[in-house]
Amino acid sequence: MIIVMKPEATKDQVAHVASRVTELGLEPHTIVGTERTVVALVGDERPVSQDLLESMPGVEKVVPILAPYKMASVEMHRQPTQVKVDGFAFGGRKVGLIAGPCTVEDRSMLIELAHEVKAAGAVALRGGAFKPRTSPYAFQGLAETGLRYLAEAREATGLAVVTEVMAPEQVPMVAQYADVLQIGARNMQNYDLLRAAGNQPKPVMLKRGLAATVEEWLLAAEYILKQGNENVILCERGVRTFEQHTRFTLSLSVVPQLKQLSHLPVIVDPSHGTGRRKLIEPMSLAAIACGADGLIIEVHDHPEEAVLDGQQSITSAEFARLVAKCRRVAEAVDRDL
Amino acid sequence: MIIVMKPEATKDQVAHVASRVTELGLEPHTIVGTERTVVALVGDERPVSQDLLESMPGVEKVVPILAPYKMASVEMHRQPTQVKVDGFAFGGRKVGLIAGPCTVEDRSMLIELAHEVKAAGAVALRGGAFKPRTSPYAFQGLAETGLRYLAEAREATGLAVVTEVMAPEQVPMVAQYADVLQIGARNMQNYDLLRAAGNQPKPVMLKRGLAATVEEWLLAAEYILKQGNENVILCERGVRTFEQHTRFTLSLSVVPQLKQLSHLPVIVDPSHGTGRRKLIEPMSLAAIACGADGLIIEVHDHPEEAVLDGQQSITSAEFARLVAKCRRVAEAVDRDL
Amino acid sequence: MIIVMKPEATKDQVAHVASRVTELGLEPHTIVGTERTVVALVGDERPVSQDLLESMPGVEKVVPILAPYKMASVEMHRQPTQVKVDGFAFGGRKVGLIAGPCTVEDRSMLIELAHEVKAAGAVALRGGAFKPRTSPYAFQGLAETGLRYLAEAREATGLAVVTEVMAPEQVPMVAQYADVLQIGARNMQNYDLLRAAGNQPKPVMLKRGLAATVEEWLLAAEYILKQGNENVILCERGVRTFEQHTRFTLSLSVVPQLKQLSHLPVIVDPSHGTGRRKLIEPMSLAAIACGADGLIIEVHDHPEEAVLDGQQSITSAEFARLVAKCRRVAEAVDRDL
Amino acid sequence: MIIVMKPEATKDQVAHVASRVTELGLEPHTIVGTERTVVALVGDERPVSQDLLESMPGVEKVVPILAPYKMASVEMHRQPTQVKVDGFAFGGRKVGLIAGPCTVEDRSMLIELAHEVKAAGAVALRGGAFKPRTSPYAFQGLAETGLRYLAEAREATGLAVVTEVMAPEQVPMVAQYADVLQIGARNMQNYDLLRAAGNQPKPVMLKRGLAATVEEWLLAAEYILKQGNENVILCERGVRTFEQHTRFTLSLSVVPQLKQLSHLPVIVDPSHGTGRRKLIEPMSLAAIACGADGLIIEVHDHPEEAVLDGQQSITSAEFARLVAKCRRVAEAVDRDL
Repeated sequence: MIIVMKPEATKDQVAHVASRVTELGLEPHTIVGTERTVVALVGDERPVSQDLLESMPGVEKVVPILAPYKMASVEMHRQPTQVKVDGFAFGGRKVGLIAGPCTVEDRSMLIELAHEVKAAGAVALRGGAFKPRTSPYAFQGLAETGLRYLAEAREATGLAVVTEVMAPEQVPMVAQYADVLQIGARNMQNYDLLRAAGNQPKPVMLKRGLAATVEEWLLAAEYILKQGNENVILCERGVRTFEQHTRFTLSLSVVPQLKQLSHLPVIVDPSHGTGRRKLIEPMSLAAIACGADGLIIEVHDHPEEAVLDGQQSITSAEFARLVAKCRRVAEAVDRDL
Repeated sequence: MIIVMKPEATKDQVAHVASRVTELGLEPHTIVGTERTVVALVGDERPVSQDLLESMPGVEKVVPILAPYKMASVEMHRQPTQVKVDGFAFGGRKVGLIAGPCTVEDRSMLIELAHEVKAAGAVALRGGAFKPRTSPYAFQGLAETGLRYLAEAREATGLAVVTEVMAPEQVPMVAQYADVLQIGARNMQNYDLLRAAGNQPKPVMLKRGLAATVEEWLLAAEYILKQGNENVILCERGVRTFEQHTRFTLSLSVVPQLKQLSHLPVIVDPSHGTGRRKLIEPMSLAAIACGADGLIIEVHDHPEEAVLDGQQSITSAEFARLVAKCRRVAEAVDRDL
Repeated sequence: MIIVMKPEATKDQVAHVASRVTELGLEPHTIVGTERTVVALVGDERPVSQDLLESMPGVEKVVPILAPYKMASVEMHRQPTQVKVDGFAFGGRKVGLIAGPCTVEDRSMLIELAHEVKAAGAVALRGGAFKPRTSPYAFQGLAETGLRYLAEAREATGLAVVTEVMAPEQVPMVAQYADVLQIGARNMQNYDLLRAAGNQPKPVMLKRGLAATVEEWLLAAEYILKQGNENVILCERGVRTFEQHTRFTLSLSVVPQLKQLSHLPVIVDPSHGTGRRKLIEPMSLAAIACGADGLIIEVHDHPEEAVLDGQQSITSAEFARLVAKCRRVAEAVDRDL
Repeated sequence: MIIVMKPEATKDQVAHVASRVTELGLEPHTIVGTERTVVALVGDERPVSQDLLESMPGVEKVVPILAPYKMASVEMHRQPTQVKVDGFAFGGRKVGLIAGPCTVEDRSMLIELAHEVKAAGAVALRGGAFKPRTSPYAFQGLAETGLRYLAEAREATGLAVVTEVMAPEQVPMVAQYADVLQIGARNMQNYDLLRAAGNQPKPVMLKRGLAATVEEWLLAAEYILKQGNENVILCERGVRTFEQHTRFTLSLSVVPQLKQLSHLPVIVDPSHGTGRRKLIEPMSLAAIACGADGLIIEVHDHPEEAVLDGQQSITSAEFARLVAKCRRVAEAVDRDL
């Protein structure tokens, strides 16, 4: 950390900062500049509270130097992590496609759709049994019945199942049915849920919060890793900005950025990330071109009858065409699909 | 709702929309314009999925007309709600001040501080026993021990206790010790937690999410109200924007805006909302000037030794001066304090 | 437009709105709903001020139905526009690459670099002679000398020249030397400049403002088109959001979105859009994958000695490798390069 | 500045950075940490390009320590600047109110309104003769005719005139009629305009750009100051965020923040900053409570007939009531009005 003193800071204040820092186990280096004095700290700054240092008399601001996450960091884990989901490795050479309806609604429609997306090239089936809904008046999901339908679809097709878990106490039940536990954007900083997901062994797909920085996102992943579960897949799903032509702003530059900062696989959700059916295909291609390890896409054969999110769903025929195009782009960047 | 058809929409598509809408229990009015046809719907549009309508062939977009929340709405409840907290009514003529440390750390320091903020004019004591921390390496709170200290401080001073609850299963325990359950910004859309808070009778202070619209915030309140708990206090605590001179952007215009849309009391958190000690006083004055029913402020007598958030705490002496200034502004806008 | 009346609006207020709207040349259709009355307007709403209607007694809000731009709209011009720049057509099957230094600094270095980027596959040379600099203490560009160097580089290499114009009175001089006039993000709503650029025949590359919506951007293009210059190229260069891992958030979803709304070619600037050298290549590939008609990239052979923006420049060797990768992705989406 | 080296940076790279920095006239202090080496620079860092340093091999990032503006800074000018406008001093104890129509439309209506706002307590008349309009189809202002009407209103009432200038070549004409030149949000980084405004002696009211940081805003002011015009008034008018309940997010915390960073007076525009008539009064009170030196408010006696911005105008009767309330709040914070 670098502690920047105020222009009017006294020598005593600087000395006090240096001695306080020493007590905290760091080594202070004081540099007297022409306009400001700065104190550079040597040692592991992570356990030290930036707030505490900023509250000391004479301190103007504190600039952290090290990333606050460790286990999620590429520096602690040079090789990319491959997260195995039922034989498929997210984070390897192959790009993995996860597809399915926003919400599990009907058992036979789900199984039919699962067959279709599998035939088109998906490696996993998505579908919500527990749904985080903005409005209490909206359909909240089929709960365990939905999980059972998903499990039946897995048996029928061999597809892995990805589904959302919304509360710590749901973790055991969801983990019993699902192959990957999804933590949604609105729960990215639900720390009890992160810990619960870290305390069981199934892979976790951690969606980015609507206003989360890359650092906060990796710190959320760190909560899971720290409990001992190393199987975390990050999923960019759009952030909230002033833009209104899409529901959210899909920020694809996080994909290559995360590859430089972390060893965890990164996938992209162009369905929620744009909220517009016609943008799903081009943004899927773009995601693969910039290095995404996978995509998660809403597919529904009757979007007009979907209980939810019909506007951002494509049909399985459209999905099959999308897969064919994605395959070409994947090959152009030396990936397979 | 208004359904806007695409310019190339056929008559059959318009007819299909109209008949589908009728099935959904609404009355369609079709208006053929020079460049677009629109279908205006008469009836309660809230249960109808906008997504579903947007997925119909020929539909360009759907524009909702009614606010999606009901019980939180001023239209359903013309009189401002007063939320009683231990004799004090938030939402009445008096502006209520809640003060205390970010985190409960030490029993005797807490009780001493409680006496000080009470003497200065606070009506409630804040303090975190469970802390949502961005980093898993940061101090996570004293849990039940912290709650006990808060209860002791209440007994010693008569101040009501406001403290955060982070998970549905913590609700009974927190409700046992606290007078007001705080739901933090990162949990504003933790729907299981909202429901749990709605299923018990203690007042709930619902902080705005970092990227929540006013509509989403009122819908989160609606989750609590719908369970039968009508004692909801809204708390603006800053939103995330590009601005970097403060930790968050305190958006005070939501205060008068909420007063026009809802009957619920609204308070402001200038400590987290700015993250800078020197801005707490001016933003407190501004909040009262534009109609806030209260403030929640971090006070710590030794910010330099605070485990957390020293940078955004003021001392109890500073708090006393702030109260005196707030009182003058409150009177200038015909409120008391 | 749809005029939504307040719940308490009187019949007289509705009648007044309807008669006022008729005076304005539109045909009102009043629909009395269960909770609100709405008045739908038939006719060309563009010349009617939304503000004016919103000021009428009893009106709650006004919802526009039509896009406010015309000439930039795909509805007025079904075929994609191809903007010819020295034999190359932006908006055709070929993806066009524009490359060069942020700022024109040294004549011989510029000419050498021009040869290199041409050899690598660029169709135009970029370089700033007039520089919009955030700080008045920063280098402001070589002005006409810089333009002359650019013209010499064109003669030496045959590359077209793209350079920024910052003020209406510079337009004639810049147009004399350049093949494409660039209007920068900070000037996107400098209306006098837009008009001046529209009053001359050279193509204009219009960068998106840092906080501009798609609608505002197309309206800015409309200023140029309306003066009679139809040769407008739109350039996405990142928007300002809360994200800090990049200088700006490159919002690639605008590329396919613009293709649905407008006939104008769209290119992407991954150098300014990310501000980070290592993200330029992946975001270039992503831009092409989602349909960009070109890229504009900062190339500098000695980024360490660049007067400006070294952090976001790549070398000409890196550019050549990038072009090879872009070509593969372009072919994968049925484009050439 | 602090230069943070990459973890894998070699000793040679560190040495190269240190020697390069020395060449640039700064004194490097190298601190070898456990995970990173940092090089702290002593001396005036402002003329040194951060980009250049970030391009050097082995450098991870560069952290500036000093604010990049000088003349706008409180450190260079400890006493608050008072900008005199026709006898009134913005930045003194008195809060100054500027009021008038968005656009100058009709001569006699303008003069009547000027009498009314003067009677209510305004010290200056606002009104646009040149209008920056998002759409080329919208009314663009009366130009010099409008300026003449404003001058007539000044003669009739004694009110100072504040009006917008949109292009460098308009500066002499506008300066001839106006007492204060307004530079609008969309032109905050129109550097030629800033210089032109700095080259004449009339006070300049510089509105904040829609996505401008405090630092960029003060650097824009620095452009004017550097030309020799010290009479700059800053005006917060809302920034663009995800919020939709207002047109922009009025960020009042910049008012006290600017008071800590700069000596320039700061005023607030609650009309454009909210875009909603009902929020103008509460946000005016809040602005004064947190230290604003003035307000600029749109007043129009017939908002329904206003050519522009009726939705955000209040009548002169409403303005008179607002002034009375503002006066009480001003007195509560030891200001006059």
